[in-house]
Amino acid sequence: MDKVFANRRRALQAKLVEEKLDRLVITHPPDWYYLTGFTGDSGTLVISRHSGKGATLVTDGRFVSQAADETSGVKIVQQSGALYPATGQLLQAGRGRRVGFDPTHLTVAQHSELLRATGKRVAWRGAPGLVAGLRMRKEPAELAAIRRAALVADEVMNAVAGMLKPGVREIQVAAEIEYQMKQRGASGAAFETIVAFGPRAALPHARATSKRLKKNELVVLDLGVILAHYCSDITRTYFVGRASSRVRGWYRAVLEAQAAAIAAVRNGASCGDVDAAARTVLAGHKLDRYYVHSTGHGLGLEVHEEPRVAKGQTRLLEPGNVITIEPGVYFPEIGGIRIEDDVAVHANRSEVLTRVSRDFTEL
Amino acid sequence: MDKVFANRRRALQAKLVEEKLDRLVITHPPDWYYLTGFTGDSGTLVISRHSGKGATLVTDGRFVSQAADETSGVKIVQQSGALYPATGQLLQAGRGRRVGFDPTHLTVAQHSELLRATGKRVAWRGAPGLVAGLRMRKEPAELAAIRRAALVADEVMNAVAGMLKPGVREIQVAAEIEYQMKQRGASGAAFETIVAFGPRAALPHARATSKRLKKNELVVLDLGVILAHYCSDITRTYFVGRASSRVRGWYRAVLEAQAAAIAAVRNGASCGDVDAAARTVLAGHKLDRYYVHSTGHGLGLEVHEEPRVAKGQTRLLEPGNVITIEPGVYFPEIGGIRIEDDVAVHANRSEVLTRVSRDFTEL
Repeated sequence: MDKVFANRRRALQAKLVEEKLDRLVITHPPDWYYLTGFTGDSGTLVISRHSGKGATLVTDGRFVSQAADETSGVKIVQQSGALYPATGQLLQAGRGRRVGFDPTHLTVAQHSELLRATGKRVAWRGAPGLVAGLRMRKEPAELAAIRRAALVADEVMNAVAGMLKPGVREIQVAAEIEYQMKQRGASGAAFETIVAFGPRAALPHARATSKRLKKNELVVLDLGVILAHYCSDITRTYFVGRASSRVRGWYRAVLEAQAAAIAAVRNGASCGDVDAAARTVLAGHKLDRYYVHSTGHGLGLEVHEEPRVAKGQTRLLEPGNVITIEPGVYFPEIGGIRIEDDVAVHANRSEVLTRVSRDFTEL
Repeated sequence: MDKVFANRRRALQAKLVEEKLDRLVITHPPDWYYLTGFTGDSGTLVISRHSGKGATLVTDGRFVSQAADETSGVKIVQQSGALYPATGQLLQAGRGRRVGFDPTHLTVAQHSELLRATGKRVAWRGAPGLVAGLRMRKEPAELAAIRRAALVADEVMNAVAGMLKPGVREIQVAAEIEYQMKQRGASGAAFETIVAFGPRAALPHARATSKRLKKNELVVLDLGVILAHYCSDITRTYFVGRASSRVRGWYRAVLEAQAAAIAAVRNGASCGDVDAAARTVLAGHKLDRYYVHSTGHGLGLEVHEEPRVAKGQTRLLEPGNVITIEPGVYFPEIGGIRIEDDVAVHANRSEVLTRVSRDFTEL
């Protein structure tokens, strides 16, 4: 892996040259993991465009020995005092006046601390998304990791569907889901598992409660694992009992919308067009006003990353992108239906990574 | 609860008057939960000093119906387009020129979007920690909630100690810990559970791995639950086998340091003095250079919040503060020992909320 991280740092150095930056301060944990392998919670990483200078990681006493174990070719500096003033001092003392930072990952307070510590020795430049841009194009080994994470999500989904019997509580199902994840080697859930029964399924982001499942209710399960650092994300909607033809019609419409969006995923398509594919189908069923969120998001070291698959997004899909496709409809007081899968973009095809049956299922 | 949230908003409005602010934009999820009960992941909350105006919550289609269910006396606005431009437009159209924001919870990019949308109609003022300042002084019901979360952490710690037998893997113990939490009604772990065996215990923030426990190893378990929104945080260190007198000596020193820090916790004491109490004991045992982190942190809706119990912190403890006390020593390649409890500050006494035995335990 040492070589992998070093290659990524080299790719970033090439970006710095393009952007006319001497150095870049990286303050977002998944970004520094991507570039060095460091898994600590606190730190800043400084990358210089001069390949000889390599990378410097500033962190505190809790993480220095871990950082030395986890990284290679990275200079580890133990901060004295607070992180951002220490990082500013290091930058102030070092060479290279134009220093970039990612404004989407630095707070106003951190930015002020850096400015104060560096004074006029550093000309700060907002440089959003340089590392996110690299992370968006997954390497083959990253795709393999996400494929495995997707497989575990599939297994967990199938394993818990059998629990969906009247009387079970949302939180019991959520607990079982997260236990099953860990049993399969996941380090944890990629996000707070969503288990929503009946009217609660009308809330796209319902947290699990002590509500018990009743007969003739919709069930939305939205879960994802972190396995070897990479995330998956899948949603299935079940019906417990015998569904009305209205519910069946909604389900078919969402499934059709999802299939249309998945079909639209290909190298060179715009993210906005993929979103529109789902929305157009739902509009055809007069259900678009119940579709209250965007169609998907990138997936990788984080469960929400670039690219965003939403209305009006002009970004074009490229090989190595991995995105979710997750249209849904929500009816207040009644319930909701969402179907979500993870899709990888290749040069000449796309690949659906999650494989649990999408057929309408009455339990 | 509606009254509780309304009272907190009133307390914040009094702070706005003190700070000469007309309005405050709240962008940190635990802060908006504290003030309204809204548990959604995305939004901004605007509080006006004019009590008649109340509060306005801007969020997207995924969360509007949930926000309406969860809040009372709060105007819910569904954003059109992106969150920060929409919030800026709302502020630009509303009354009250001086608008505060918390620079520790707003990114540089979000700040720019707000500035762009409001133009000269709004005079922005950095106003750090106004809500954090309120949250630091826990109400009796909040203390009761943290007490219950501490009790569940105790139960889980006691329940899993029996698993610590040679051959068990760190990740198995971590999975069991998180399952036990959920079985006891926790919505989840307050942070990624730390299970570290042998030399891995030398890393204060070790993530659980597939490492198997061997005889004669130290075991550090650091866990916390979220129960009804409030967090707990406890660490115990066990020895599996028969410990050397050197290890026993280290354990006694950490326990003595922790006792000294707990004894220093009282209404009016400075956080820096509490930290120094632990550090002085370890220095007396010539172990201070192995104590690589600070002594503790506030605990509440977040597992790390104000006040920080660290070197040089001049903030004085007040009734209603809840903090962790968690000194430790770490020996690279050998192992580490940390003992952590949660302590509440009352007017005339302090209260240790976590109660698992701290005696040196060989399993």
